[in-house]
Amino acid sequence: MAPSLTLFFSLIFAFLSSSLQPLASSSPFNHPPRVPATAKLPWAQVRANEAQAPEYRYETRYFSQQLDHFSFLELPTFQQRYLINTEYWVGPQRLGPIFFYCGNEGDIVWFAENTGFVWEIAPQTRLKGPNFQRPIRGFALHRYYGESLPFGSREEAYKNATTLSYLTTEQALADFAVLITDLKQNLSATDCPVVLFGGSYGGMLAAWMRLKYPHIAIGALASSAPILQFEDIVPQETFYDIVSNDFKRDSSTCFNYIKESWNNISSIGQTRNGLVQLSNTFHFCRPLNKTADLWNWLEDAYGYLAMVDYPYPASFMMPLPGHPIKEVCKRIDGHPAGTSVLERIYEGVNVYYNYTGETKCFELDDDPHGLSGWSWQACTEMVMPMSCNPDSCMFSPFKFNYSDYEEGCISSYGVKPRPKWITTEFGGHKIDATLKKFGSNLIFSNGLLDPWSGGSVLQNISESVVALVTEEGAHHLDLRASTKYDPDWLVEQRATEIKLIKGWITEYHEKYNAMFDM
Amino acid sequence: MAPSLTLFFSLIFAFLSSSLQPLASSSPFNHPPRVPATAKLPWAQVRANEAQAPEYRYETRYFSQQLDHFSFLELPTFQQRYLINTEYWVGPQRLGPIFFYCGNEGDIVWFAENTGFVWEIAPQTRLKGPNFQRPIRGFALHRYYGESLPFGSREEAYKNATTLSYLTTEQALADFAVLITDLKQNLSATDCPVVLFGGSYGGMLAAWMRLKYPHIAIGALASSAPILQFEDIVPQETFYDIVSNDFKRDSSTCFNYIKESWNNISSIGQTRNGLVQLSNTFHFCRPLNKTADLWNWLEDAYGYLAMVDYPYPASFMMPLPGHPIKEVCKRIDGHPAGTSVLERIYEGVNVYYNYTGETKCFELDDDPHGLSGWSWQACTEMVMPMSCNPDSCMFSPFKFNYSDYEEGCISSYGVKPRPKWITTEFGGHKIDATLKKFGSNLIFSNGLLDPWSGGSVLQNISESVVALVTEEGAHHLDLRASTKYDPDWLVEQRATEIKLIKGWITEYHEKYNAMFDM
Repeated sequence: MAPSLTLFFSLIFAFLSSSLQPLASSSPFNHPPRVPATAKLPWAQVRANEAQAPEYRYETRYFSQQLDHFSFLELPTFQQRYLINTEYWVGPQRLGPIFFYCGNEGDIVWFAENTGFVWEIAPQTRLKGPNFQRPIRGFALHRYYGESLPFGSREEAYKNATTLSYLTTEQALADFAVLITDLKQNLSATDCPVVLFGGSYGGMLAAWMRLKYPHIAIGALASSAPILQFEDIVPQETFYDIVSNDFKRDSSTCFNYIKESWNNISSIGQTRNGLVQLSNTFHFCRPLNKTADLWNWLEDAYGYLAMVDYPYPASFMMPLPGHPIKEVCKRIDGHPAGTSVLERIYEGVNVYYNYTGETKCFELDDDPHGLSGWSWQACTEMVMPMSCNPDSCMFSPFKFNYSDYEEGCISSYGVKPRPKWITTEFGGHKIDATLKKFGSNLIFSNGLLDPWSGGSVLQNISESVVALVTEEGAHHLDLRASTKYDPDWLVEQRATEIKLIKGWITEYHEKYNAMFDM
Repeated sequence: MAPSLTLFFSLIFAFLSSSLQPLASSSPFNHPPRVPATAKLPWAQVRANEAQAPEYRYETRYFSQQLDHFSFLELPTFQQRYLINTEYWVGPQRLGPIFFYCGNEGDIVWFAENTGFVWEIAPQTRLKGPNFQRPIRGFALHRYYGESLPFGSREEAYKNATTLSYLTTEQALADFAVLITDLKQNLSATDCPVVLFGGSYGGMLAAWMRLKYPHIAIGALASSAPILQFEDIVPQETFYDIVSNDFKRDSSTCFNYIKESWNNISSIGQTRNGLVQLSNTFHFCRPLNKTADLWNWLEDAYGYLAMVDYPYPASFMMPLPGHPIKEVCKRIDGHPAGTSVLERIYEGVNVYYNYTGETKCFELDDDPHGLSGWSWQACTEMVMPMSCNPDSCMFSPFKFNYSDYEEGCISSYGVKPRPKWITTEFGGHKIDATLKKFGSNLIFSNGLLDPWSGGSVLQNISESVVALVTEEGAHHLDLRASTKYDPDWLVEQRATEIKLIKGWITEYHEKYNAMFDM
């Protein structure tokens, strides 16, 4: 169950980290994501709510990687974990494709199991010609996460800024590049086309990898990849505004109750027995130590709910009904007049943390899933400035303050962020102008309910750098396995993705055959 | 004068290093390029042979750079030197272009002064519209060369493998990316188009930079850039075959005399007073210590002669006549019957080392120009396998042996090369297939007399990734200032380059205006 929280926690962690430090001490990282007691539900039980997930078959392998691809310091190598299925592959003679998932900031098994699209894509398409139907599937774990640990153990890898210093996106991309190159050589498949897949941070990696390593992959599907959430490329308010709008569109009274709640919590928290009172209202197993913990717990829930506001019951994060925000607001709004705001909020958030109703009280838990890797990344390269606008945002208003952010990073890690580095290395400003004339075979898919969509590419840039946007979609819904509950627009979106990817492969095959006279 | 040898020495160093180690000890780097006494001629005197070089005006500036862009180790920054001329710039409002030269493995002043094309390009074109006529010109010095020295001094920077470990192409490209980004921000010129220029290794950097940082530069002119001289992309024999053919096409007897000479030298070298005898024949000021020193001295000359086999008198390397190989062969062939092979060779090589006739005897000198940076690069990333085929090559036959090469690097630096890294990071295999569908605005210019042309791109890849090939051109001749001796094909080549570059800028301006409604 643990890994199910990783992706979301990490990305939401970025927004929490960058925004809410005024509530806490000088470090933006002193309120890592909380894990509720329901997280301990067995995985099988959680899955029962969702369409039956197929059993995906793969081998687990390890590949020896340079710790630093860009210097020649004498450093220990590390073993990168990856999963692979070659059993249906048509082989190199027929230029059988390789589908490669760029691992995120979490364990890869969980991603492989929750990226049904990559498993289903071939049979589902019923395309003619076995070349496309039988790809190799690979899923590579990102360095410093899961079992891809430098220095032999998590403890050593995360010991300090020196050991952590090689946890960067460029190194991760180079890992993928070296791994794929070696893999292809070992399979005598150097000419076989590779297509990249990734969702969320993995989607950013897939897109950047297509841009930086076009000789390694012929195209990439980057789902819910906020590659523009840096510097001043998109408005800082985007993320929170989208979360807030997701609630507002279902119910403006619900939005207002939530907006009102923060001051209520603060006021009560400041009274003599306020923390006990709040702990009781929200059914915590233990009394709260500070109001900020409750704020974070609620903010986590709202942020995640916006991301997984899927149109059918799912249990990616938590077991949730379809359209969970609607359900949350129904409960917040639905209580009789006279119910206090905080009682309403409790009932609402209960949908997220305790939809099965089995949890009697909630636990706050500090980073049980080893997510602190992301907080290092946020403190070095992945600086995503976010603010909360007093009018449009239902959270407590906040303006991003880089000095505070930097100070927090120095105090937490002794490291100074490089907030301009990502756009220098990967671009982002006026991405249309750059990619219109350069680059190809990229899909940016986004659901507009997903707060990360605001930092992604939402318009077609060229004939082959395209944006697929679904109004009712949420965080990389398209990468999930198909279910009988899929709405038509989702079925359609996936069909378009498949058509585009098939087009890349077909074009590659045709050009290859023409050039090398096969 | 010193820097005039840098570029060529370094690149030829690669071929010497990779090929001739059997002559020497286990290290491929124990015979660095030799600098003859003529190198001490004052610069002005050397220049007299050539068309008068204009005085280029620039400011010298320094920019603080991260030593490692790809990790967050706490490391000292260093000051990168760059030259800049902004005085004629039309400014950001008119999207005035920025021409940026990617510094090579040598001092930047010399490159700036020997890249007249970048200075002349605007006035020469007589194009309408001041946007194109008045670019900023920037020339950035590569890290670890000249005065761009980490750790405060050359001695410290070159102390050992640890201090040298950040001398890599990716770091150098990142330096350029950060520098250009900062420069543009400071000039309020973030939207101004940047065009990259580079020759030889600098051309490789320009091409790779356009590929890796398309958001920073709209195009690149990569002159004599052997980006394919890695692994098995081009035949290992290419370099030596071209050098040899340059001699053979002028005179097959000359080719044969040279081919014959190596065994003669070895035989004499093995006799009792052989080294003294050879020293006398070749007029060395001091007796040779080993035959290999003479071999290297001769090979250097032939390799450089092939590179600078320019159609008019020039003094880029040495003061030389136009078509210097023709002159060398004339002297080798022209002596009366009965003249020994080695006397002929001496007369021929005298054209290269002593065309002015002022040198009475020759000195062997070890790396007086701080070129060992390239040998580190050759021992880490820039592994360019080269062989000498017994039939087609006029040097002593030799087959590239990677184990020996690696052993030499370990023994010299304690570093193990990563021979597959460059192609993993930058591509190269089937570059047509990759760049046909990805990438744009790249010119690969090559003269076929240049032995490095064999490792470059010699055919158009797409409408905007083009190869300009001149049969009679040599090493990045097109980047030099125009002279009254320029043959028509050279004038034409430069005109085509200007037209293409103007096209990139015009297209950029048009698209920008259309997109942002200026």
